[in-house]
Amino acid sequence: MAMDTGIIFHPYMRPGRTARQTFEWGVQSAVQADQAGVTTMMISEHASQIWENIPNPELIMAGAALQTKNISFAPMAHILPHQHPTKLAMTVGWLSQILEGRYFMGIGAGAYPDATYMHGIKAEDPATRSEQLNDMVRESLDIMEKIWKREPFWFEGKYWTAGFPEEEQPETEEDEQHMLANYSPFGGEFPEFAVTGFSYNSPSMKLAGERNFKPVSIYSGLDALKKHWETYAEANIKAGFTPDRSRHAVSQTVFVGDTDAEAKKEVMEGPIGYCFDRYLIPIWRRFGMMDGFAKDAGIDPLKADLEFLVDNVFIVGSPDTVVEKINHLFEKCGGWGTLQIECHDYYDDPAPWFHSLELAAKEVAPRIKLPGA
Amino acid sequence: MAMDTGIIFHPYMRPGRTARQTFEWGVQSAVQADQAGVTTMMISEHASQIWENIPNPELIMAGAALQTKNISFAPMAHILPHQHPTKLAMTVGWLSQILEGRYFMGIGAGAYPDATYMHGIKAEDPATRSEQLNDMVRESLDIMEKIWKREPFWFEGKYWTAGFPEEEQPETEEDEQHMLANYSPFGGEFPEFAVTGFSYNSPSMKLAGERNFKPVSIYSGLDALKKHWETYAEANIKAGFTPDRSRHAVSQTVFVGDTDAEAKKEVMEGPIGYCFDRYLIPIWRRFGMMDGFAKDAGIDPLKADLEFLVDNVFIVGSPDTVVEKINHLFEKCGGWGTLQIECHDYYDDPAPWFHSLELAAKEVAPRIKLPGA
Repeated sequence: MAMDTGIIFHPYMRPGRTARQTFEWGVQSAVQADQAGVTTMMISEHASQIWENIPNPELIMAGAALQTKNISFAPMAHILPHQHPTKLAMTVGWLSQILEGRYFMGIGAGAYPDATYMHGIKAEDPATRSEQLNDMVRESLDIMEKIWKREPFWFEGKYWTAGFPEEEQPETEEDEQHMLANYSPFGGEFPEFAVTGFSYNSPSMKLAGERNFKPVSIYSGLDALKKHWETYAEANIKAGFTPDRSRHAVSQTVFVGDTDAEAKKEVMEGPIGYCFDRYLIPIWRRFGMMDGFAKDAGIDPLKADLEFLVDNVFIVGSPDTVVEKINHLFEKCGGWGTLQIECHDYYDDPAPWFHSLELAAKEVAPRIKLPGA
Repeated sequence: MAMDTGIIFHPYMRPGRTARQTFEWGVQSAVQADQAGVTTMMISEHASQIWENIPNPELIMAGAALQTKNISFAPMAHILPHQHPTKLAMTVGWLSQILEGRYFMGIGAGAYPDATYMHGIKAEDPATRSEQLNDMVRESLDIMEKIWKREPFWFEGKYWTAGFPEEEQPETEEDEQHMLANYSPFGGEFPEFAVTGFSYNSPSMKLAGERNFKPVSIYSGLDALKKHWETYAEANIKAGFTPDRSRHAVSQTVFVGDTDAEAKKEVMEGPIGYCFDRYLIPIWRRFGMMDGFAKDAGIDPLKADLEFLVDNVFIVGSPDTVVEKINHLFEKCGGWGTLQIECHDYYDDPAPWFHSLELAAKEVAPRIKLPGA
């Protein structure tokens, strides 16, 4: 079984891009990725960050729904504490039906305190806030599952109240005024849930294992990646499931060019480098995400700059080089199912980006085999 | 100034239609209406009714955004008690930006008790429930306006808590990790708000006048229609505004055919008649909406059947007949700005429906003049 290629769209649009440009770029990326053979597109949901300017991933999915054939979509992630679970359950169910099952559902508690604050959650102490957010995630999931079951209930929770009514009886044979619409996910099954983890001791990976969610690792160094799979697999087995590496997705910065030199130049001087200098390097330093990479290379995290990342962390090069780099990672960590390529702002000149995606999906991925498969 | 033509999409899809069909029909209707010169498309939001099976009007707008040029969209209406105001404010603001201003916002409290119940609002007594819902609408509007202003606040309301943070300062000149995304409506202005009314003493029309919202009348007889405008205009003047009939939209069942006989046959035997027999006549009886029509014609409401509606209430016929019928209504009630045509399920054979829309927009509307204009 060969590795799959996915994209993850945050979307790292440079400040100044209009919402229309971001939306167009999202729809265009979905259509092109679908045509290139990319199997999944994850789309972020962010209320605060100008560089990650999508509050509603579902709108981009709707924009691309009728123009794509095979690609599956996932919000990565819907932030459960920000919205009423009934409303969200119906949105997700309806969209999953519109996409006829080309849908899975990333769920999250929210990583940015500003976004949390906007939605009325303010505990000063990060640990208390985190506990509350995780508590809200659990309650939201419970309510969404009840809504999708479409059986009568009334539930007054700690954060939300919700219910499902008894369907009223028709007054005559032809009377359809009381019939209830069905907004459960496609096929009546719950959608596959997915969660992302990035820290070494990621609690999300444990949760994913326990509840058999799809694990998505935001790549933050080899040690963390190995640990993610161990944590997931251990919890998954303990809960009575069989861990399956093909469900594991790993997000990475990837650029495939015709030659190594072209690829490196494009990343250093193009939209990816610009984004890292302005946004991601500062934010990776703030969240400690540079530490794992620096450790892998045996350098001081403060010395980790763009060129260091391009040479040591990202997967950049010709198809042959990229195959080699991924095989090296597979040897070290045991492999994964989907390489989830981080998207960047190629709105002004999409050609190199879509060429890279096509090489990744058609020239690279088929040559990467999952160990033991 | 001539009358405008709009459509209103509930969408009255017959039970058994898939979500994908409903969504496709919505996007196709938007594209065709835009090409026909229809100026506005209102889309409902319903959590419960199988015949009105759209929980998220914004998804259809997103599906049509890049394929339409001139038509404006409005949810009619977003049900404010069902969702967190911060989340909704960002959705609305972002979509208004994506549509570059081709957007206005219908707001509502929710008319269906089942839908209200699903979202955790259950007062047994209709008056108490209605009071709570209206209270929630006011609080939601207050919060949304604060979110759109993008100034720091913290607000703990009766139903929701929300805030907007101080923007943090950058650490270096190039550091953009703290910049906040802007999800205010296009142009920084609030969107135009709209509310619908249907009962004779509609409280929505008073609210619309007081707050200078766009008034939308669901046609329920001449007396009510006249009264809607009087209520609106009186409240509007009292609040210091100048009422403008061109902002008044009236939703109606309209079908324009090449001849009167063809049009009547199509409505009686086609999707419109089917929907009225199965869904709308029962529901109109339940909500007392038949009373006004019966009064206009001097008959017993229980005798008002489909043919009665086609002949006496709907606007059905050749272009000449339809012009005449609308002019007759204009004489009686003073006229309105937009005829908001109720959409129906022509998914299987769209041609007669789009022909009717085109005749309405191109052959009928230009011949209807607003009085005094």
